[in-house]
Amino acid sequence: MKPLTRAVLLVGAPQSMPDIRYATGFTAPDPVVYLQQGRKKHLVVSLLELERARRVTKGVTIWPVEALKIRREMKRTLSGWALGLLRQLNIKSVMVPPEFPVAVARNLSRAGVRVRIAASSLFPQRQVKTGEELIRIAECQKAAVQAMLAVVRHLACSHADSQGFLRTGKQLVTSEALRALINKVLLDYHCMGQGTIVAGGEQAADPHEVGFGPLRQGESIVIDIFPQHLDHGYWGDLTRTVVKGRPSAALLRLYRAVKAAHTAALSVVKAGVAASRVHAAAVSAIRRRGFKNGVAGGKTQGFIHSTGHGVGLTIHEMPPVGLRPTRLKKGNVITIEPGLYYRDIGSVRIEDLIVVTPSGWKPLAACGHFFEI
Amino acid sequence: MKPLTRAVLLVGAPQSMPDIRYATGFTAPDPVVYLQQGRKKHLVVSLLELERARRVTKGVTIWPVEALKIRREMKRTLSGWALGLLRQLNIKSVMVPPEFPVAVARNLSRAGVRVRIAASSLFPQRQVKTGEELIRIAECQKAAVQAMLAVVRHLACSHADSQGFLRTGKQLVTSEALRALINKVLLDYHCMGQGTIVAGGEQAADPHEVGFGPLRQGESIVIDIFPQHLDHGYWGDLTRTVVKGRPSAALLRLYRAVKAAHTAALSVVKAGVAASRVHAAAVSAIRRRGFKNGVAGGKTQGFIHSTGHGVGLTIHEMPPVGLRPTRLKKGNVITIEPGLYYRDIGSVRIEDLIVVTPSGWKPLAACGHFFEI
Repeated sequence: MKPLTRAVLLVGAPQSMPDIRYATGFTAPDPVVYLQQGRKKHLVVSLLELERARRVTKGVTIWPVEALKIRREMKRTLSGWALGLLRQLNIKSVMVPPEFPVAVARNLSRAGVRVRIAASSLFPQRQVKTGEELIRIAECQKAAVQAMLAVVRHLACSHADSQGFLRTGKQLVTSEALRALINKVLLDYHCMGQGTIVAGGEQAADPHEVGFGPLRQGESIVIDIFPQHLDHGYWGDLTRTVVKGRPSAALLRLYRAVKAAHTAALSVVKAGVAASRVHAAAVSAIRRRGFKNGVAGGKTQGFIHSTGHGVGLTIHEMPPVGLRPTRLKKGNVITIEPGLYYRDIGSVRIEDLIVVTPSGWKPLAACGHFFEI
Repeated sequence: MKPLTRAVLLVGAPQSMPDIRYATGFTAPDPVVYLQQGRKKHLVVSLLELERARRVTKGVTIWPVEALKIRREMKRTLSGWALGLLRQLNIKSVMVPPEFPVAVARNLSRAGVRVRIAASSLFPQRQVKTGEELIRIAECQKAAVQAMLAVVRHLACSHADSQGFLRTGKQLVTSEALRALINKVLLDYHCMGQGTIVAGGEQAADPHEVGFGPLRQGESIVIDIFPQHLDHGYWGDLTRTVVKGRPSAALLRLYRAVKAAHTAALSVVKAGVAASRVHAAAVSAIRRRGFKNGVAGGKTQGFIHSTGHGVGLTIHEMPPVGLRPTRLKKGNVITIEPGLYYRDIGSVRIEDLIVVTPSGWKPLAACGHFFEI
């Protein structure tokens, strides 16, 4: 990949700006200014962050705001910090990402700085993971596996009452309780679950519904666990769908179709293959079993999303595994997660996280497959 | 407050855009387009979010992207969604927040839309909390209190080994273990701890250091718990500083100065008072006890931050309680958190979360004060 020769400017809180975290290893909930020119990296931080920034980063020049020699009013705004740094470095033209804040861009332009908006990612190297990054993602994925096993064990030990509600002892088994169980196991591995999905029956037909209320026997329960590591910030992503008791024949057909799609997609993955071919393999496996993808009459039913996405310092990142023909590269970390969603029958999604290799792929952490428990 | 008459446009993931969450009650990790004109609210979502958006929001017109009648390429970009909506509503001029993405602003301008950047918050009403919001923030604050009591109990039951390290049984008491304990208690109250601080001794001199490694007797341990509710997204914020065993005389003086500053600041709070007066009360209480605020020779020591900040759908929001003379309003929710930080002596911060009333303030949740445990 071509090194950055133009000066790249980023502003914002590193906690929500993975590019800054990637480039510096530094994170904070408060905003900073980051500038990179060639291999030279500069970070402007408030005095509160100074010592920590110096300790945590390597090869980054840390500027306390005070060192920028800017007027008092300028010290109060990110535009002021950015302008101060650009003047110190005698830089008059910068490249910014598409999501750069419009007000800072305008203020820089007014001050005579040429601001160019990048057409694509400024850190494309983020999609090819290093060995250290793979270890970090695997840590998160192992945490997800442990949480999955804990929740499945909990469900396996429940029983159905006369109305079909699952109970442990006298206690109803709810989405909320299982979500709390999952998130607690994740904490044991220094990971955080945010948005953990435990969605039963009809609820899971909305893939972003996290699930609520009591769970029932015979219904599909989609469990989607995506932990972020509390220290280094990488993510994992794992989904299994289970049924306590006997699924209907229709639901079982659904499961088998998704499992077949999952296998079909995985069988195609290797470096050099177009991501769209992986998606096509999943789609055709599902079609072959009589299910459809897409939308009918404004209703989203069937296979309604893409087959996967990249995972790293964000939970959704490059490369997407859908309709786009982006070629997979060695070191891409992607999910493979076909799903089928029907309000009447139920919903099934099966998701694993893998790293692309020259000859195929490897799992980031192994997790068995199960459905009826 | 003046109602919004101009069309206001926001784009991005509601999960990281509290204005969208505030205006619609809807949250999602994936991006949406939000437009408000007078009291009319419009939200553009992907088909995946459609049903949930309709169920969760009230008085908001939900547009699936498909209903915008835009070309296929436009469906793939937020700029396309925004343009499609503006055309449907025949709107040619919009106001956007300062942090609006520069690329979308440019694309709208190129398509003939006039884009004006707001000078200040587009939802200033967010700083005056409604009764329902206060209940939600109190829920989070109560969770923080429970977690604080759990961790203090745990520390109280520990003992020091011959080298001064705290242990429970044979196990070392570490920042990491206590953080996990706190975050697990928070989960019992449907809250999430992210960035929870348990920092002992010298570590706490960096107010943003979360803390790591074994804790010792006689050193100050700063415990800062700021949970976000997993469902509604509001925050709480609570800090106590404790010492297991006997603090040094210097550390005790530090504690007493911070406690006096905390009391002094609270005694000034009421609707109509300038926030800067509250900060000044804390500063002068600290000075009176022989401590200083500010920076000396690039070292941040003493009272190095402001006295507090607003809390709501974000952990740091309006109004700040520092040097600015913003008048406090009835219904503001603010922290009062003076602190003193010295690498050699130790660090103390005491923080409570309060709501401003016409005659003074009320705590969002009560938490006792303790230091030596």
